[in-house]
Parts: sequence; C-alpha cells; structure tokens
Amino acid sequence: MSLRTTLDFMLYDWLDSVSLTERARFAEHTRETFDATLDMCERIARDRYAPFNRLVDIQEPRIEGDRVVLPEATYLAHKAYAESGMLSATQSFESGGMQLPCTMEAAANAFFACASVGINSSLLTTCNANLLMTHGTARQQEVFARQEYAGHWSGTMCLSEPQAGSSLSDMTTRALPDSNSGTVSWEQDVLGPRYRLSGNKMWISSGDHELTDNIVHLVLAKIPDSEGKLIAGTRGISLFIVPKHLVSSEGELTGVRNDVALAGLNHKLGWRGTTNTLLNFGEGKYPVDGRAGAIGYLVGQPGKGLACMFHMMNQVRIAVGMGAAALGLAGYYASLDYARHRPQGRPHTGAGKDAAQPQVLIIEHADVKRMLLAQKTYSEGALALGLYCSKLVDEQQTGEAGSADEARLLLELLTPIVKSWPSEWCLEANSLAIQVHGGYGYTRDFPVEQYWRDNRLNMIHEGAHGIQALDLLGRKVLMEGGRGLQLLAARIQATMAKAASHPQLAEFAQALGAAAQKVSHATQAAWSTGNPQQALANAVPYMQAMGHTVLAWIWLDQACCALAADSGLQQTATQGRLGCTQYFYRYELPKISAWLNVVTARDMTCADFPEGAF
Amino acid sequence: MSLRTTLDFMLYDWLDSVSLTERARFAEHTRETFDATLDMCERIARDRYAPFNRLVDIQEPRIEGDRVVLPEATYLAHKAYAESGMLSATQSFESGGMQLPCTMEAAANAFFACASVGINSSLLTTCNANLLMTHGTARQQEVFARQEYAGHWSGTMCLSEPQAGSSLSDMTTRALPDSNSGTVSWEQDVLGPRYRLSGNKMWISSGDHELTDNIVHLVLAKIPDSEGKLIAGTRGISLFIVPKHLVSSEGELTGVRNDVALAGLNHKLGWRGTTNTLLNFGEGKYPVDGRAGAIGYLVGQPGKGLACMFHMMNQVRIAVGMGAAALGLAGYYASLDYARHRPQGRPHTGAGKDAAQPQVLIIEHADVKRMLLAQKTYSEGALALGLYCSKLVDEQQTGEAGSADEARLLLELLTPIVKSWPSEWCLEANSLAIQVHGGYGYTRDFPVEQYWRDNRLNMIHEGAHGIQALDLLGRKVLMEGGRGLQLLAARIQATMAKAASHPQLAEFAQALGAAAQKVSHATQAAWSTGNPQQALANAVPYMQAMGHTVLAWIWLDQACCALAADSGLQQTATQGRLGCTQYFYRYELPKISAWLNVVTARDMTCADFPEGAF
Repeated sequence: MSLRTTLDFMLYDWLDSVSLTERARFAEHTRETFDATLDMCERIARDRYAPFNRLVDIQEPRIEGDRVVLPEATYLAHKAYAESGMLSATQSFESGGMQLPCTMEAAANAFFACASVGINSSLLTTCNANLLMTHGTARQQEVFARQEYAGHWSGTMCLSEPQAGSSLSDMTTRALPDSNSGTVSWEQDVLGPRYRLSGNKMWISSGDHELTDNIVHLVLAKIPDSEGKLIAGTRGISLFIVPKHLVSSEGELTGVRNDVALAGLNHKLGWRGTTNTLLNFGEGKYPVDGRAGAIGYLVGQPGKGLACMFHMMNQVRIAVGMGAAALGLAGYYASLDYARHRPQGRPHTGAGKDAAQPQVLIIEHADVKRMLLAQKTYSEGALALGLYCSKLVDEQQTGEAGSADEARLLLELLTPIVKSWPSEWCLEANSLAIQVHGGYGYTRDFPVEQYWRDNRLNMIHEGAHGIQALDLLGRKVLMEGGRGLQLLAARIQATMAKAASHPQLAEFAQALGAAAQKVSHATQAAWSTGNPQQALANAVPYMQAMGHTVLAWIWLDQACCALAADSGLQQTATQGRLGCTQYFYRYELPKISAWLNVVTARDMTCADFPEGAF
Repeated sequence: MSLRTTLDFMLYDWLDSVSLTERARFAEHTRETFDATLDMCERIARDRYAPFNRLVDIQEPRIEGDRVVLPEATYLAHKAYAESGMLSATQSFESGGMQLPCTMEAAANAFFACASVGINSSLLTTCNANLLMTHGTARQQEVFARQEYAGHWSGTMCLSEPQAGSSLSDMTTRALPDSNSGTVSWEQDVLGPRYRLSGNKMWISSGDHELTDNIVHLVLAKIPDSEGKLIAGTRGISLFIVPKHLVSSEGELTGVRNDVALAGLNHKLGWRGTTNTLLNFGEGKYPVDGRAGAIGYLVGQPGKGLACMFHMMNQVRIAVGMGAAALGLAGYYASLDYARHRPQGRPHTGAGKDAAQPQVLIIEHADVKRMLLAQKTYSEGALALGLYCSKLVDEQQTGEAGSADEARLLLELLTPIVKSWPSEWCLEANSLAIQVHGGYGYTRDFPVEQYWRDNRLNMIHEGAHGIQALDLLGRKVLMEGGRGLQLLAARIQATMAKAASHPQLAEFAQALGAAAQKVSHATQAAWSTGNPQQALANAVPYMQAMGHTVLAWIWLDQACCALAADSGLQQTATQGRLGCTQYFYRYELPKISAWLNVVTARDMTCADFPEGAF
C-alpha cells in the first residue's frame, strides 16, 4: 500500500474526516478540497524533498563568516512548501489560511516527513505563528505571524539552555525592561512591552540561516523581581518575541541586527538537513542603540510564558510522533521494495533445500515477512494514532461543548503516547529495515541507515522519553480524578463492542479488554502507597505498556472499520489490516505483562541501586 | 567498575581461569602471566586505540590511484597490536605464540574493542592463520600463517558474493586447475595444488590496504566438474589461499601482483575505521603469466572448503559477540560518567519539587538509573557469556575426552546465542547511552552515537540474526538427539542447586527453572508437527527467548559466585552483581513468555501473510 492509499483509508474510511465539513469552520471544504491538498503535498514531497534527502545529510549546514550555508535544495524545498500554503493550513481564510482541519494538515505533512524529514523544518514556523494567533496581540499577529505564514520569515522556539536542558525551572535567561532606549516608553511599544534579553539557548532548530529575511525567535526568559533576583521554578517564566532583525512598528525590516548571535552549530547523528544551533542572546555582539541586550517583546502576561509555550509544545509533540511514523514508513517502503527484488536463498521444506532450484525473492522467507509485517504494523499504527490525536484537536476546537471537553482531556492523556510510542517503535522499524537489506542496509548506498539515524532524535527532542513517562503516570492519568483514563476505557469498550460483530476479531477484543484491565490495575497499584518515588520508579515501562495497549485498540478499531466494508477479506488492503492487527495481538501486546509487573510491584530495583555499585 | 575489575571477577572468581594452568598446554602460565597480558592490552588500547576512535570514523578509508589510504593512527595501532604478540596469542610456543587459553585471548581483546572496535580488525588475520594451522599444510603454515602472526601480512575471509550474500550454495566464484602456467605441475606446487580463480567477493573486511606487505585471502570457490559445470549447493565448495602479492615457494615476495583487484569500498553507517571492500578475482586487471585468473592454493580437500571455513566462522562469531559486548560497555562507561557529572532537575518527593534547591546529578533520577542498570546488565552479561563460551573452546581443546565433547556440543548450541544476543541487546544498551546524554548524545561531540552506529553491524555480519536463529532452532537444538539442550539444562540445574544455598537468590532460581521449562516446551511444540516451515516460522523470537534464558542463567551463576565470597554484600561490586541479577529477573526474563507464545503455537501470522497485502 502506498502512503496515499493508507492515508485515504485512515482519513476517510476510518476517521470519517469528511464529516468535519458539516461544521461551520470547515463548511467550505469537501472531499475534493481535502484530496487536492494531499495531491499537492504528495507532488511537492516527491519533486522537492525526496530527491534531496541524502544530499542534505551529506552537505550539512556550515558557518561561513557569520552566515549559515545550506544547499540550494533546501532553499527550493522551503520555497515550494511556503508557496503551497501549508504554513497556514489550519488558519482561517481571513488570516490567509486554508482553514483546513488539523487532521488534514497532519496527513498532508506526512508526505514531507516521509520524503525528507530533515530538509526543512517548517513545523516550528507554523507552530510559532499559531501560538501568536492565540496568545499574541493583533499587532504581533499582523507583524510577525503574517510574515511567517507567508514563508518570508521563519520561527523558532527557544526553551532549553545548556545548563538546564529539560529542567525549565532552572533557566537563567533574563529579561529586563528596556526603559532607556528607543523613542516610545518601553511599556507602550506597539509591538508589545519591550525588554532586553540576555542568556544562552541550546538545541535551537533553524536558529540561524538565510532561508528567510528574518527569524522570529519565541524565547522563554525570566523577569527578575524588584531585587534583581530570578524567581526559582517555572512560575517566573515569561515569553518574548525576539526577532533576528529588528522591525519597525509597521513590521518593516529596519536594517538593524538584533543582539542574537550564532554561537555554534550542533553536529548531529542524523536529521542533518536542519540547522541546530546554540544562540547567545544579548552578549553585545550586535549592540542595539549602543548597548548589549537582545530586544524582545512580551507575549501574553509576565510569568505566564510557560503556559503559552505548552500550547505550542503539545502541537509539536503530535508532530514528532507523526514524523517518527513517516520515517518508519519510509524504511518500510524501502525494505519492502528491496525484499521484492532481491533473490537469495530457498525456503525450508520438509525435504530440505534443493540447491538446484533458483533462489527465491527474500520476501518469501518467513523471517523477512516478520520484519516487514512488524514495520508495517508499527508505522501504520503510529500514523493512525497521530491522525486520531489530530482529529481530537479538531474536535476540541470545533466540536460541541461536551465532546470538545472529552477530546481535550483524552488528548492530554494521549500526548505522551503519541510522542513516545512512534519514537520508540518506528525507530525499531527502521532497524528492521536495515536488517532486511542485510549488509547493503549498513551502507550509505541505501536510504535506510539514514532513516534510522534521523529517527533516533525523536525519543530525545521535545521532551525525552523519561519526561513523557513522568508526564503520563505522574500527571495525566491523575488529572481530573483520573477521568482521562476513564474516557480512554470507554472508547476501548466501544471498539470491543464493534468487534463483537466480527467473529474473527473476538480473540483480539478479549485480549484488549484484559490489557486495559492490566493497565488500570497497574495505575492503581503504582499509586496505592501515595509515594511518587515508588509510583514513578517504573514510569517508562508503564508508558510502554500503555502505548502498546493504545496501539492494540487503534489496530482493532481499524480492523473493525476494514471488515465492516469488506467482511470477506476480498481486498488485499483488508487482509493487510487484519494481518497487522493479528501480528500486534499475537506478537506485541503480550509484552505488556513484563512491563507492568514491575509497575504493579512498585519494583525499586533500579531506583534503589546504589550509585557506587555501577 | 572498570572493564579490568569486571574481567578480573569473571576470569578469576567466576570462571576460575587459573585452574587452566594445571593443564599441560598452559603449564607455563600463572595468574601473573595472565595479568601481564591484560595489563599490556589495556595499556595499548588506552594509548593507541581509544584516542583515535573518532578520528578513524571521520577519516574513512578512501582510494587514491589503486591504493587504500588510511590514517596514520591505524598504522600505529596495527603496529602496536602486532608487536604485542596478540595475533598468535593462543598458538603454541614453538609456533611463536603465547600459548594462552582462548579465555584470556578473548578477555584481552575486549580492551581493544572497547577502545576502538573499528580501527584495526586484526581478528580476521588471527582467525585466518589459525585456520591454516588446523587445515593447511606445513608449508602453507610456514609461508602464510607465520607472516600473519608476525603482523607482516594480514588475512581476510572471502565468502559472500554480491548475488548470493548469506546463501553460500549460490556462490559462482570458480577455481580451475592452473595446469598450463608455472614451472612445476599444478598439482605439485609446494604451496598447494594451484588453481586460477575468477569471481567477485563482497563485504570483504580489510580486503585491501597498505598496512601490511601482503594480504592472505582465504577464498571459497567452486571447482567445476568434468563438464565445466558448478555443483549446486554447498558440497562443491573448496577453500583457497589467494595472496594479494604472489610469493615464492620459500615464502618470499616475488614482486608479482596476483590478479585480485579492488573494485570498490563500501561506505558504511559505522565501523568506518575498517576497510570493507568488493574484490574482483581473476578479471585480468593484474594478469599472471600473461593470463587472467587469480592464483590460489587449495587448502584441505576439494569440496570440503565450507567445513574448514566454519572452523574460522565459529571463532569469529564468539568474537562478534565479544565486540558487541565491549561496545555496550564503552557506551555504559561513557553514559555513567556523564550521569555522574551532569546536574539537571530534582527528584520527585511527596511534597513536590522544590525549585529553590540546587539541581541534582542526573544519576539520582530513577529512570537514568534504570537506563544505566540495563546497560550494565546487558553488557556485562554479554561479556560473561562470551568468556564462558571461550572457556568452552579451551575445554574442548584441552579438557579430558568426556568434558571436551560436552564443551564441543554446548558450544555448538551456544554459538548462535553468543553471536546474536550481544548484537541485539548491547545495541539497545548503546541506544540507552545516547538517551542518558539527552541532546548531547545525539551530537558527534560525544562518543555514544558512534558506538551505536558501530554496533549496528553486529546483527548483520558473520551470519545475520535470521540465519543464527535458523541455525539454533533448525539445527543446533536437534543435533545428536537434542543432547545440546540437555547439557544446557544440566548446567542450569547445577546453577539452581548452587543458588539454593543463598536465600536471596531463591526467587531467581525458581524463575530460571520455569524459563528453562518454557524453552524446552516451546522447542518440542515447534517441532511437534515435524514441519520445518511451521517450526521455523518464529525462529527469531525463539532465539530471543533462549538468549534471555541463557543470560538469566549466566547472571544467576555469577551472583552465586559473588555471594559465595561476600555473602553480606559488603562490597559495592557484589551489590552491583546482585542488582544486575535482580534487574534481569524482574525486568527482562518475563519477556520470554511473549516471544515463546508464538513459537509454541507455531503461529503463522507472518509466514502466511499474503505478499500482495504488504
């Protein structure tokens, strides 16, 4: 099945995305406009992304003078993406957007991630502008977001610092009122209250380049209290727009460079097409009005920056999962193609092997089939989960009140899963893609080793695996009295009820019910002593088990849908979906027992291991 | 624990390697001579290998003219290794060797693999020469093996061909009697019956370079029958010595190039320090006596080449597992060091986090501990298994008849495990080492991403995972009426009996017994229909389960040994070994149920999946 065929089933048959056009927000859309978007993205990805995926891996970004040099292919890919309108795919028509559902945006973007995940990371630009559309002033939207949607400027998110990493409460970037420069008072600058920022930000993707005329950094920093001290913890964090080049109140480029300096490029294992930087804010390399300090404009209220940023981060986390899924699919397609054309060996038969017979294609070997089926199941499952979560975003934004609220809470619960599960299992899929190729897969003459390197990032960025697990077991399953898990359980029950009308799914429905019970039991057992150190000691195995249970549900639900239209398994696509479901229930779901054992027992083997004994 | 401390425990406390000095073969040795070997290798690895591991990754081998260019560091490493005497570590004193046990050779080589697995692959030279010492003529040993042991010449093994890969029966390299050139008749050439070879060999490590004055290729090829046809299958395969440069009957270099041409270098994901080549034999680029065809000297009997080569491959397979273990340890040490120095975040406590407190070192976080303990358990477990198997080689070669025969058969059974298990789980260890580093681990500023790339090869070369699994379930567990599994079961029982005297091990001993029962049951169930397609459909999950069971046994046996000397857990090293054992039994061993379910059920989900449905 091609990516398009797979998306068509998920979007239209399974998720019934066309029903979204019955809502006012999407009333201008039809299946045809959705399809046109997919057509366009599929074509651009094929022409402007896929042919250059290896090139951007080899021609890594480098600094010449104080500029970042990128291959021409990156410029062309950026231009084509910007011209497609996808940067503002979900924005309203009046903002110049396509007013598409998030579901369609996520599906369309999968073509790009599958073709070349690293060539151009426009995702952050979109998320950055979307954040401003929610939390920025009208002027901030007009000046900054508009240019970002048009692709003239690009956007970043600047959270991490070298000394703090994921621990945002320890950031030390400071923002002081810029009260003695400029012609208008700092509080009344039309672009927002004006501050001077100083500090270092690490891991900033697309933090510097010449792809666009300007870069809009969204920077988290702390405003010191009246005694000049930073408030400990995350309460003191505010959000600022810090443009690379300063702009007039009308949004024109002034020709003045802001005090944001490129301090270095990170040289990565993979995902090399995307520039990743260390940025120094306000060190005085580019003084403004004769003084060090990067000019930044406050977004939202002081001290509320983290909440604004989380708006963006949740979007990004779904996108990370979708990117991991797309990479998984890319490796699957490559290894499937290889397995269909490479002759080697002969099947084992009762009579032994007959060397006089010609070699068979390796796709005929059971273990190659196993590796292909695992890849298909992981990657298509991850894709389905990502689309499901995107549809929850649409529901949250356009559904009726009760349903929107359910979607919100379910999304909170599923966000750590949709981010972590594809990152882990589609990486495994890429490893299997290498294995199918044998020695050839280990060479750079084939694309699969790059997919594997690229995908390794996804368990790290935008909240590492361990962070996601703490979020899931330490926060999400507890919030609102555990209602998130109840909502999930209800949806699982609904799928089991659907499955009841298909005898060939009975085995799976029963296994799903048992798995959900086990997860529920483990959740209670983990927290039964009320001690977070015990409860959270095995948060990652818990997340793995919850992830596998969620994927089992996603596959069974898809199987129900496939069988409803093709109960006789007439189509190979239906056979494929049933095969994936069967693979997942027979080979994968049973793994949860091992993961949950330690959660349920509040096993402290790791937590109590003496440091001196390592 | 350092690698040395770990090896000391395994070699001397656990395996009682000093008892080998009671045997005639090793009578000249003492604990002191063993230690001196370890000291020397540790020092050379530290000085000549470790500092250049990144350099050989960056300065990949390249072709200039018709020569392969390598960094100077590779020459120095090669020289130091050759001078150490390790090339002939296990050979007899009269052959110029050190007459060391294989156990000590394997342990000493772990230092090099841990420091830089790719810089210089001397393993093949040793294995090549060892093969000649077993199967070659006295003259072949004198001319070729002697120079290899001295490090003047190096060795390769040439099995794979581009069109055949692992399917040796499909090789098409031909060897024809060289009956019309030379001054002596082809059958009576003093170096062995002389043939002309033609064909292409792929994936040849160290296949061309200038590190040594000559390269001794050991090449598998087929001698056509009287009608000029190649015999189908593996029966027709013979083994030949094909030197890069021709030598006189006295072993002097003649200045004449043999018809072996470098057709290309493979550009790999990792392990880049080692040249990997495509070689064309006999295409006429370097004609000998005016004719195309590479001169080769038959080793052993015609048609018996594969058996000779397997002698070498089994050695190599243990070494692959040891290399994977050493890479796992390298990543473990690097991430342990990082975790001990990197402050970030605060532990969860009942009262929530107090941001006013300083950040803690990340080694204090339970999930970081989990990732470190998993690495330690995988890597030290793999190392222990590799040493155990090396000791079986010593037992096979120097033990009394019954014990030697047991060792032989047990080694047959364990070879697929010692090759595959470390390749899979120490790769996972390297991924965890990246994860401990967070974003830094994804950059080339830290060594762990390279370990991960280097280690990915081990599941592929010297018999891919799928091949090992077929060997295990399709051959090894069946041979001699299943006596191999019985021998393993007896050793597991012996360990359980030892564990009975330590109350804190009772839980593990019971779990091990149950696991061994499950594996045994699954083996019978897989073959209960006598249909190899059903039995072998899930050979890889079977091998994973058997591997985990073997490692559980290895850890319990080590725990018994550690407790016997330190029953009060006074030493941190003992606490570490008990912690690893507990980790393995609580977090890892329970996984076998999921793997064995499909084996026992002879599940055909993958094997029967229709090709059109992918």
